[in-house]
Parts: sequence; C-alpha cells; structure tokens
Amino acid sequence: MKNHEIQIKQWLKENRARGARLLQILVRENSTRGNESSTQAIVIEKCRQLGLTLDIWEIGGDELKNHDAYFCDRQSFEGNPNLVAVLKGTGGGKSIILNGHIDVVPVGDEQSWNHAPFSGMIECGKLYGRGATDMKGGNVALLMAIESLIANGIKLKGDVIFQSVIEEESGGAGTLAAVLRGYHADGAIIPEPTNMKIFPKQQGSMWFRITVPGKAAHGGTRYEGVSAIEKSLLVIHRVQQLEKDRNAKVSDPLFEKIPIPIPINIGKITSGEWPSSVPDTAIIEGRMGVGPEETMKSAQLEMETSLRELAEQDEWLRENPPKIEWFGGRWIPGSLESEHPLMYELTKCFLEVKGVNPVIEASPWGTDGGILSNVGNTPAVIFGPGITETAHDADEHIVLEDMFAASEIIALTLLKWCEVDD
Amino acid sequence: MKNHEIQIKQWLKENRARGARLLQILVRENSTRGNESSTQAIVIEKCRQLGLTLDIWEIGGDELKNHDAYFCDRQSFEGNPNLVAVLKGTGGGKSIILNGHIDVVPVGDEQSWNHAPFSGMIECGKLYGRGATDMKGGNVALLMAIESLIANGIKLKGDVIFQSVIEEESGGAGTLAAVLRGYHADGAIIPEPTNMKIFPKQQGSMWFRITVPGKAAHGGTRYEGVSAIEKSLLVIHRVQQLEKDRNAKVSDPLFEKIPIPIPINIGKITSGEWPSSVPDTAIIEGRMGVGPEETMKSAQLEMETSLRELAEQDEWLRENPPKIEWFGGRWIPGSLESEHPLMYELTKCFLEVKGVNPVIEASPWGTDGGILSNVGNTPAVIFGPGITETAHDADEHIVLEDMFAASEIIALTLLKWCEVDD
Repeated sequence: MKNHEIQIKQWLKENRARGARLLQILVRENSTRGNESSTQAIVIEKCRQLGLTLDIWEIGGDELKNHDAYFCDRQSFEGNPNLVAVLKGTGGGKSIILNGHIDVVPVGDEQSWNHAPFSGMIECGKLYGRGATDMKGGNVALLMAIESLIANGIKLKGDVIFQSVIEEESGGAGTLAAVLRGYHADGAIIPEPTNMKIFPKQQGSMWFRITVPGKAAHGGTRYEGVSAIEKSLLVIHRVQQLEKDRNAKVSDPLFEKIPIPIPINIGKITSGEWPSSVPDTAIIEGRMGVGPEETMKSAQLEMETSLRELAEQDEWLRENPPKIEWFGGRWIPGSLESEHPLMYELTKCFLEVKGVNPVIEASPWGTDGGILSNVGNTPAVIFGPGITETAHDADEHIVLEDMFAASEIIALTLLKWCEVDD
Repeated sequence: MKNHEIQIKQWLKENRARGARLLQILVRENSTRGNESSTQAIVIEKCRQLGLTLDIWEIGGDELKNHDAYFCDRQSFEGNPNLVAVLKGTGGGKSIILNGHIDVVPVGDEQSWNHAPFSGMIECGKLYGRGATDMKGGNVALLMAIESLIANGIKLKGDVIFQSVIEEESGGAGTLAAVLRGYHADGAIIPEPTNMKIFPKQQGSMWFRITVPGKAAHGGTRYEGVSAIEKSLLVIHRVQQLEKDRNAKVSDPLFEKIPIPIPINIGKITSGEWPSSVPDTAIIEGRMGVGPEETMKSAQLEMETSLRELAEQDEWLRENPPKIEWFGGRWIPGSLESEHPLMYELTKCFLEVKGVNPVIEASPWGTDGGILSNVGNTPAVIFGPGITETAHDADEHIVLEDMFAASEIIALTLLKWCEVDD
C-alpha cells in the first residue's frame, strides 16, 4: 500500500467523530424544498475552511428554464443557492465531479417516527433523521474524502469538483444549472443511498398527475352523482396493471434482484371537500419509473394509452376521460457501460477497503446522474453509504460505519482517477 | 274558498318578484360554515321589518356542548348567530316551528359550474347558486308565507316560530341550541329540498373518518413500503359491500322508489405528501345513513365490525388496523306517523294548491327534524321546494314556481294549524 493511501486511511480513522458531528449538524437543519439555505450555509462554511474555490449562486434564468431537461414547478429559487466548490488540480490528471443534493423530502407523518425527524440522534452506530441517508451522509463522505487529501498535503493532478445542489428530489434543476454553468468532468460519483452497491445504470422517472372527474351530489342521494373516488379506483387498478405489464418485459440482469425494476408509485390522492357530498374531482399524483434504455416519451405514451383504453371501457369515463399531466420532477435515466474506467477504479478501491467485490446493480430510482451524463456529457456512477430502504421513510437513518467506508473508497478512487502529483 | 285563503293566494301571486329578489340577495352571500353572518343579517332585517319578535344569539355554552345530541367539531360560533323570530298568536291555537338552515356546503370545483356559484342568476324560471335549493329557497318560502299573513292583517291563534339556524350541514348544533333555549311547538315544518315531496320519516346520518396506516418508502423501491392508498382500496371496497348488505335489508314502503335507501357516502380521501414516496397514512371521510327506526349506535357497530373483519383478512391490516372515528356531523333519524294531524293538514293544503296528492316518501338524508322531534318533542315533517338532485352539486338551482307553490301550501297550512282569530 502506498504512503498516501496509508495517510488517508489513518486520517479518516482518526476523524470519524468529526465526520459524525458534521452529519449531525446537517441533519438537524430542515432542508426540505424551499428551505435549503441554512443547511447549504453549513456546507459552504465547511468548503471555505477547506480552502476550496467557491461558486455560490441562485439558479434560474432563461437558459435553465428553457432547457429540454428542465422539469420544475418551483416558483422561486431566491435565497437557496447552489454550491460548487473546486479543489483545483495541478494539471494533467482526469477531473471528477462529486455531486450530492442538499434537499430532503418532507417528513411524512411525524407520529411514525420514534426519533424526532430532525434529531440527528446517534444510537448503536446509526445516525437518525430526515436526510441522514438521502443524502447528507453521502455528502459528508465526499467532504471527508476531500479533507483527507488536503489535511495530508496530497496534491492531485485533476480537478475535484464538489457540488452541493438543490432540487434533486424535484427533478434535478440544481444539477442542470451546474451543468449549464459549465461544470463537467471526466467522470462523476454521486453518493446516493445505494446500500454500498454500485449503480452504473440508473432508472429514470417522472411525476404524473391524473385528474379524474366525477359529478357532485348530496351524499344522501349519492346515486344521483358519480363519485370521483370510485372512478379513481378504476384508474389506480389500471396503473397497477400497467406496472405489472411493463416489469414483465424487463430482462436486464442488473435488475435481477429487484422485486419491481421500474415501479409506478402512486404517492398521493386527494378527493372531496365534504364527508356528505359526492366528490366531483380526484387528483392522483405519482412517479413512473423509466428504464435505463427507455425514453421518457415512450414511457409517457404507454401510460397515456393505458388510460385511454380504460376510459373506453367505462361509460362515465368515456364521456369524461381522466386527464394526465407530466408535472414537476423528472429524472433522465442514465447508463454507464460496466467496463468504463471509472467503474474499474471504483470497484478496485471498494475491494481494497471492504475485502469483497461490490454488488453491481441498476438503481431503482432516478438520480441527477442522468443529467450529468446525458446533458453534461460526464460519465456518472452512483455509489453511496445510505440505506435505500430508509430513504423517504420514517426513522430514516444511516450506519456511520458505512459512511466512513464510502469516504475511504471515494478518497482512494480520487488518488487513482485524478492522479497524485508528487 | 275562504276569504283569507283568497287574500293569501292573491298576495303571494302579486309578490313573486319580491320573493325572487329576496332569494337572489340571500344566494349572493356566501354562507358556508363560519361565514353565516352576512346572510343571517339579511334574514334578521327582513324579520325586523315584518315586526316579528327577534331572538338573536351566538350558540354555545356547556348545556349545548355537553348534550347527548351535540356532535360538532366547530371551534367557535362567534359572530355567526342563530335567529328565532316569533309571530305571536292571540292564544288558543296550535303553535308551529318553521325551521330552515342558513348554512350552505362548499362550492366544490368551481370549474364545474356554468353559472358562478354565488351569482343568484335567474334563467328560464330557475334561480342558480349554492344554497338556492339547500335551502335558502325553502327559507324564502317560509318568510313569504309569514309575510302574506301579516300583509293581509290575518291574526293567528297559535304562535309561528320562524328559525334561521346555523350548522345544519354539520350536524344540527343550531337547531339543538334553539331547542335548548326553550323553543318547542305542536308541530314543525322544515322546507328542505324534497322536490315538493312530503317526508314524514327522515333518514339519520353521521360522519366517519377512517385512518388507514401504511409504511413509507421511496417510490423507486416502493416494494419496501406498504401503500396506505392500496390498503385504502380494500377499506373502500369493504364499505361499499356493507352499504349493499344494509340496503338489502330495507323493506319500508316509503323507501320503495329510492335506489339506495340508506347510503354510505365516501366523500373525501387524502393520502400522501409526495408523488415519489409511498404514502404512510390515508384518511377517508364519509357519511353513513341511519334508517328511521335504527339507532346511531347499532349502525356504528355494523361499520366497526365490518372493518374489524376486513383487518383480519389482511396481513398488514391485522397488525395495523384501520381506525374509525365518528366525528363532526350527526343527524338523528326522525319518524312521524303518516296519520299525524300535521301530515293531514299539509297534505290537504298541497292537494288544494297543486290539484294532485303529494308524494309521501322517506327522506334520503338527515335533517334537523330528528332533533326537533327526538330532543325538542316537536313532531316534524320535511317538505320543501328545492331540487334534491342539485343540492351540494354544481349549478345548484331552484324552480321559482315551486318556491311560490310551497309558500302558498305552507301559508294555508298555517291558517288551519294555528287557526285564524277573526
């Protein structure tokens, strides 16, 4: 083992408590959509202390908003900046983007949490709180990896471009803005919660909203109306069937162990205003997975055709068809060949740190990797310490041990990929 | 035909435009729950002009709130008073309560309305707007009937107690407060929208809220969660089955022509916060009909047993059973014998005005009649000019001709019931 590697391993081992503390203060800040600033401020201060070149800006503008890959319903980005912090290389090596999002999803039903959602409490080696896994833990792994180089005076030839972006959970406008600002590299790692698996392929996804019409009436004479809730049941059943049909066709071995490779999730339904009225509208919102080799357009077409077929089978829906919109979040699928040099280096460093080969799979969810590779022309791989199962869930948490291991694997990958300038 | 009757008929005929105008200004005020005051002010001013003895008060207090028949989740009644306006009789005749509610249900989806919800527009003899049918049109019929007596100098022996109450749409706290304030009578008419039918029996009803638990997860790995929406479908199907089973047992001939005599309406569902999360809770709200001879308690028990049975059949629900609450609105069923003298007088006056016998049925919905009869010991019959089908619906409207006819029928009934003091 080379000297630099030993230094890094040693430093990361000695600084575990600092890493855990950093994650703790990040988790204690609520960075749900529109509230990213206070958490971002902590990341900015950390990068400033590390001596990185900072680029802090509020995203927006026509180039972004008119871009084909811009799918966003947010009115204002004011006060919640993007951050790119660069560790400039001495020249000659390959550059890398280390990308993580700072936004988190809402906490859901607080009653379901045993630990308060923003507690950052550490118990039995696990740190709890919204964002611990998705993906502030991954971000800390990146920052610790960068710090381990700086603290040991290791100079790299290639640039390390750390990105702390907003809006990943709503479609990737933050990463798209960074791409449009000119940031690209020879490779990228995004430490989303993969359970320490490596995902060269990423499922894309997009949000949909289906509006189902009914006809209002008094609940006591409900037979005089048409319940939008009852008609919604038909729509939900049809969407469930579509999910089954689409997944029956998936044959990529990277998806082999995934129960539903490209799921369609119905995440939200609202209908009715009054218990004793027949509801005249129902709104169903969800997320449709898009296969790594599929286009957004063709997936949309399948859903739209499905709903049209359903409407033809129902007397009411035939005259009053459900309306579908593709709104808000949209994540382009991504696909990196398994033989790509970045896959090779990352896999080797994983083996070195963990003593076993990594599991290589396709990601079950969309990430900003699709934007980096398809729009930014930066080959991206997803690998991170968080626990997929607890992301977006109550009692979200991360195993700190994994965060430290991911940090070590990424730091070692930086040495190989960007090359050390001795 | 007696002189008084001719006078009344003549006066009502000549004052139709005034009646329509009064309804128009009442409909133009939004009197949804918590906003009743401006409409009530118009009614109060009308009653003041008629010289009635006014009793205007904000309901509340321990006696009301601790009453067995008080089912209300409203925090404050401040600023939105109840009104009772009495036309004192000369003594000796039978007294009558003429009860109407001033509150209306929300407008629902405004897009579904061809006429603006508070327009009060008159087209082809129909007046449009929320509350036109349920039940400001009925209230105007009452006020015109009272005015026709006063304008013609007709003195009655019995008291006519006009009540303009709040909260009918949410369980009847307004009428209950009037009962507790001491108002009772030998009979009562409530001109709810019955399509000019006479309802001696009224279905009771009560609101329920079912909370269905799920387990949150990221939508991309939705198989790691349990969708509260999917579990809600099971609950909804079970409730639909219960409705079928309950109605199969109804044999009362008054319900003969009603497609679903005691319906269970699912009026509202909300679940999920985020399209790409598996929702961890769903809340279903609705209204359960209670047969005229059934108790609230036994109906509740049937629903609760049903849900328990469902939970036993589902692995997830067995460990995480849906929770049911009986909240907010509750309307006690009511039942008047068809041979009651008030039924006799009203039926006779109907025949006299319309030239045909009235249709006598059981009401498909709860009214304040249950409180008047069961709590206030005042036999109540429901008869009014509104169109059942448009109540709570978009483009709610009333046929003005029916409003005038109802007014005439009620005025003639007052002459017989309360007796004229010549």
